[in-house]
Amino acid sequence: MMKKLIGVIGAGQCSQDIADLAYDVGKHIAENGYSLICGGLGGVMEAASRGCNDHGGLTIGIIPQEESDQANPYVDIVIPTGMGIMRNLLIVRSAEVLIAVNGKFGTLSEIAFALQLNKPVIGLNTWDVSDNIIKADDAADAVQKAMECIVQ
Amino acid sequence: MMKKLIGVIGAGQCSQDIADLAYDVGKHIAENGYSLICGGLGGVMEAASRGCNDHGGLTIGIIPQEESDQANPYVDIVIPTGMGIMRNLLIVRSAEVLIAVNGKFGTLSEIAFALQLNKPVIGLNTWDVSDNIIKADDAADAVQKAMECIVQ
Amino acid sequence: MMKKLIGVIGAGQCSQDIADLAYDVGKHIAENGYSLICGGLGGVMEAASRGCNDHGGLTIGIIPQEESDQANPYVDIVIPTGMGIMRNLLIVRSAEVLIAVNGKFGTLSEIAFALQLNKPVIGLNTWDVSDNIIKADDAADAVQKAMECIVQ
Amino acid sequence: MMKKLIGVIGAGQCSQDIADLAYDVGKHIAENGYSLICGGLGGVMEAASRGCNDHGGLTIGIIPQEESDQANPYVDIVIPTGMGIMRNLLIVRSAEVLIAVNGKFGTLSEIAFALQLNKPVIGLNTWDVSDNIIKADDAADAVQKAMECIVQ
Repeated sequence: MMKKLIGVIGAGQCSQDIADLAYDVGKHIAENGYSLICGGLGGVMEAASRGCNDHGGLTIGIIPQEESDQANPYVDIVIPTGMGIMRNLLIVRSAEVLIAVNGKFGTLSEIAFALQLNKPVIGLNTWDVSDNIIKADDAADAVQKAMECIVQ
Repeated sequence: MMKKLIGVIGAGQCSQDIADLAYDVGKHIAENGYSLICGGLGGVMEAASRGCNDHGGLTIGIIPQEESDQANPYVDIVIPTGMGIMRNLLIVRSAEVLIAVNGKFGTLSEIAFALQLNKPVIGLNTWDVSDNIIKADDAADAVQKAMECIVQ
Repeated sequence: MMKKLIGVIGAGQCSQDIADLAYDVGKHIAENGYSLICGGLGGVMEAASRGCNDHGGLTIGIIPQEESDQANPYVDIVIPTGMGIMRNLLIVRSAEVLIAVNGKFGTLSEIAFALQLNKPVIGLNTWDVSDNIIKADDAADAVQKAMECIVQ
Repeated sequence: MMKKLIGVIGAGQCSQDIADLAYDVGKHIAENGYSLICGGLGGVMEAASRGCNDHGGLTIGIIPQEESDQANPYVDIVIPTGMGIMRNLLIVRSAEVLIAVNGKFGTLSEIAFALQLNKPVIGLNTWDVSDNIIKADDAADAVQKAMECIVQ
């Protein structure tokens, strides 16, 4: 059975508030029985991975570097690409739906790719570049809206 | 001597007005002795390639497809990547500076990557997502501002 | 805890004998508590995925196509790359060690990358291009030798 | 008019004899009016680029690094990919035909990809992994045989 993956995107460095929000997104993904895919590094990616991991969820990280030991310690399955930020598109393609938590230009590239591919994007305090981004109020709401986007 | 490349980014389908603007961008790139790099397909990419080609400039197209015959006929050097829209980042990396002509989500992904990499972006009627985008009034102004960004 | 992945490489079409061999490789990977990563398509990839899946192992497939539904049905986690055969290198980088089961030119590209990166390759009736390929007698022997290569 | 590109593949470090051979390959490519595409680094790539450049030919280098200044000084057009050795496939796809000059595992990956894609490979003292590799006696012979493979 192919697992349905929820992508979490956001910056590699972030404030404690944003990290807490990302942690809760990861927690709700796990508690709802989904697996999480992300960029596998720090900041939002690490917090979300930790939240998912702490609650029994499986985490996948697709990292820019050539070696798997560059991933954060909460990633179960590491795909070391050696492709740099080009790996952003792999996260978008692998996820059924993306939850964007704040984020900088890297996150913007991922949102742009997702919108181009008609892949749903849930936004938590993130780039406001299209009406197609589904705004969420908090982590629970974001994961709820993400699950509604997943074709069963 | 490595040639300095000016990138032109924009949508694969566009209005006649935007195509005319892109053509003029290509023309000014050629007339100023630079080579043009773009995504090698239709719309803005084709118009800019044609404008450059018509005025004696060299054009390079990095295309999503596996076969070089998918490029527009005004591309001198085709790099067929077979990577789909992931090739967007190759255009950003290869150009010294980018001129964004209008554009949709694909162009937004390229602008995002450029801003992340601190590569200058000249904007002609395009996405307004950062103060770092240098706005231009017309094709001549855009190419003039692009040349000023190129380290000699 | 990052999972250690064993890669299985081989052709997308193969004889029944080779498929049986690949199935057994997948089975032994699962029975020894490892996860399997492969190219996610048919032939050796499908047989190995099925063998691993049937015995409770986790399977990851990195596929050339843009859509996850192109993977074989025994892949748990699909990474749809849209990169074509360029994705071969992602399999090599993600695996701790590779088991090559027979194979054609695609497999040869993966063996070449692995040898270039000093990643161990166990060979089962495969390309004989380097003394660095560790030959195995059967599926159990191949997985045993693969495990010995994994740094604990 | 799209330029027909002849690819030259070989190792980043090589003996003087191999470098001389690669230089002559580049020279004959230029003298016959073709452009050269290669991996843009040292060894065979640099010698072939220099030979082509010295005789008025255009050279394109697709390099693994993120920055264009990593290319050898005889490359006219640099595509800095940031993709590492995954860029090998881009060289194969961009060339109409490949001339392999000696070479190690990286060259083997390129030969494997070319054979998988049914792209002709001319071999000069290189890997002997398939009867489909067309053996050449010297640089002039290799370029002659390469030109015969190019569809007009």
